Amino acid sequence: MGKVILTGDRPTGKLHLGHYVGSLRRRVQLQDEGNYDKMFVFMADVQALTDNADNPEKIRQNIIEVALDYLAAGLDPAKCTLFVQSQVAELAELTTYLMNLITVSRVQRNPTVKTEIKMRNFEANIPLGFFCYPVSQAADITLFKATTVPAGEDQEPMLEVTRELVRRFNQTYGEVLVEPEIMLPENATARRLPGTDGKEKMSKSLGNCIYLSDSADEVWQKVRSMYTDPNHLNVSDPGTVEGNAVFTYLDAFCTDADFAEFWPEYACLDELKDHYRRGGLGDMKCKKFLYSVLEKTLAPMRERRHGFEQDIPAIYDMLRQGTERARETAAQTMDEVRRAMRINYFDDAELIRSQAEKYRAK
Amino acid sequence: MGKVILTGDRPTGKLHLGHYVGSLRRRVQLQDEGNYDKMFVFMADVQALTDNADNPEKIRQNIIEVALDYLAAGLDPAKCTLFVQSQVAELAELTTYLMNLITVSRVQRNPTVKTEIKMRNFEANIPLGFFCYPVSQAADITLFKATTVPAGEDQEPMLEVTRELVRRFNQTYGEVLVEPEIMLPENATARRLPGTDGKEKMSKSLGNCIYLSDSADEVWQKVRSMYTDPNHLNVSDPGTVEGNAVFTYLDAFCTDADFAEFWPEYACLDELKDHYRRGGLGDMKCKKFLYSVLEKTLAPMRERRHGFEQDIPAIYDMLRQGTERARETAAQTMDEVRRAMRINYFDDAELIRSQAEKYRAK
Repeated sequence: MGKVILTGDRPTGKLHLGHYVGSLRRRVQLQDEGNYDKMFVFMADVQALTDNADNPEKIRQNIIEVALDYLAAGLDPAKCTLFVQSQVAELAELTTYLMNLITVSRVQRNPTVKTEIKMRNFEANIPLGFFCYPVSQAADITLFKATTVPAGEDQEPMLEVTRELVRRFNQTYGEVLVEPEIMLPENATARRLPGTDGKEKMSKSLGNCIYLSDSADEVWQKVRSMYTDPNHLNVSDPGTVEGNAVFTYLDAFCTDADFAEFWPEYACLDELKDHYRRGGLGDMKCKKFLYSVLEKTLAPMRERRHGFEQDIPAIYDMLRQGTERARETAAQTMDEVRRAMRINYFDDAELIRSQAEKYRAK
Repeated sequence: MGKVILTGDRPTGKLHLGHYVGSLRRRVQLQDEGNYDKMFVFMADVQALTDNADNPEKIRQNIIEVALDYLAAGLDPAKCTLFVQSQVAELAELTTYLMNLITVSRVQRNPTVKTEIKMRNFEANIPLGFFCYPVSQAADITLFKATTVPAGEDQEPMLEVTRELVRRFNQTYGEVLVEPEIMLPENATARRLPGTDGKEKMSKSLGNCIYLSDSADEVWQKVRSMYTDPNHLNVSDPGTVEGNAVFTYLDAFCTDADFAEFWPEYACLDELKDHYRRGGLGDMKCKKFLYSVLEKTLAPMRERRHGFEQDIPAIYDMLRQGTERARETAAQTMDEVRRAMRINYFDDAELIRSQAEKYRAK
């Protein structure tokens, strides 16, 4: 049994730097290192529908955006399987059977579900599909026998539900499913990139995101107006780097090589931070540097994206092919699931033989 | 759009007279009258698994029993489509999307769910799959665009959930699904046959059932020991017919023609009841009559069943073929569902064209 990575995004909008730092960059690394036997990356449109049921158009329009962002970031359909969740019917089937192995109150106790329900102001009006999504997520993971799920710490309770379901399934029906492990981000800066306004999180509705598909000019405008230290009014004032979005972004992106290339006055980020703290360093200089650093990542992505944008039908075709490959694995697991549950009646020669015998003996 | 009947049973045991009187007899009539364009009868193994998750073997063994009972009772695969629920993956898919259109609290308020949860002593430990079964049932009905669901009054709240989901789906995505009507039993005696012990309901665990597949001798032993009127100790004593299982069964089964054939002393059941009430009529005589009446129904069924039992593989083959036919309808509806929801991305030429254009214009 091989090592299998599974991960995905809800296709409700274009991907931004928060996605890149939080997961996408790591995925591309993992893909290129090639230490895993299989890697699945999917567009979680079924999950997105659980709280966007009345707006499927948003999801419909964003499948292609996320696909282009994936390709632009370096995901390669030759190395990993990109697929669309809703087109893998086996996911719904497995979800059905896993739902019998968990109680309503166990799902209610899940802290991730609690938080998400609060975030969406659902209160008493939780859509049933949304409520059940930890199980649907467990089906996503286990259908592909994923061993490794790159995700943030906040997803650990969801993974725990998945592992419980795996144990329960295997105990009840026989060893088929695989317990997944979470793969946490390597360091704190990768955990959550704040918005350009310094708010905790990049969010489309707050308009504080830098998108992977932004033009160079858009990136510069966003960096230029970025939240820094509100008390750093004059260049000569001492500045604070904590909570200063420019420095948080630099933490997430810049390397010593970037200093050598763009700002040789400093050897490394710590030196820059020291100067900023002492006073005498203007925000604009730091922003120009950040812009150069970001562009080092974003410019080639933008160029690659532009290339892919020239043939949209080919992208859909790539997704269709990826989905077909994903379905092969999915169908294989569902066969094993049905066999283990012994609900594969029509293919169950032993069942048919033994019952024929019983009636012959009568 | 045609008239479509859909109905089914949980394959957790052989069918008994309660099933026959409550639904199966009516189904055969409906099938033979031919006033419906399509008729689907299915084995609800997925639903049975929601509260039998740890005992799929029970379900596995009973698929064939229910199929044999269906055929014995007169359901005819040439006139109606017999299929196995778990083998129609589209049901799980549609369930997934319907679950987004109903809230957790709406399901909780359903009186049928409340009763069923109480009956099974689930309390806080309701399996999630069981909790969601009104939605899964709505998918069963709507996937086949059933217009008519023969069922008891207790199922009316479930049908109401289905109709709500249909309205919600059609308003949100477009007219695809069809609102079903319940078809209630024609008369009170058809609503629920008591057990042979006089208890409210036939139940395998109470051992008070007469099975459609019982031998003539088994039927006689069960009728002979049937609950009557505990105060009717001597033949000369007046007897009570209310709550007397023998008379409840006669209510459900016997006709004036049966009197002419088996007991010409009486013209009809009312005369017999009058005599029993007055006193001077022994239980054993009534039981012998009931036995003759039941055997008029059961003997030909037993014979037909015996015929079908001789070729068990052919029965599985019939179910497989029925399931394939059911899947054709299911796939057709799911195509319409996906198109209405606009999640048929790969086949959506307009989507692909408009997005290609957007990027060409950039």
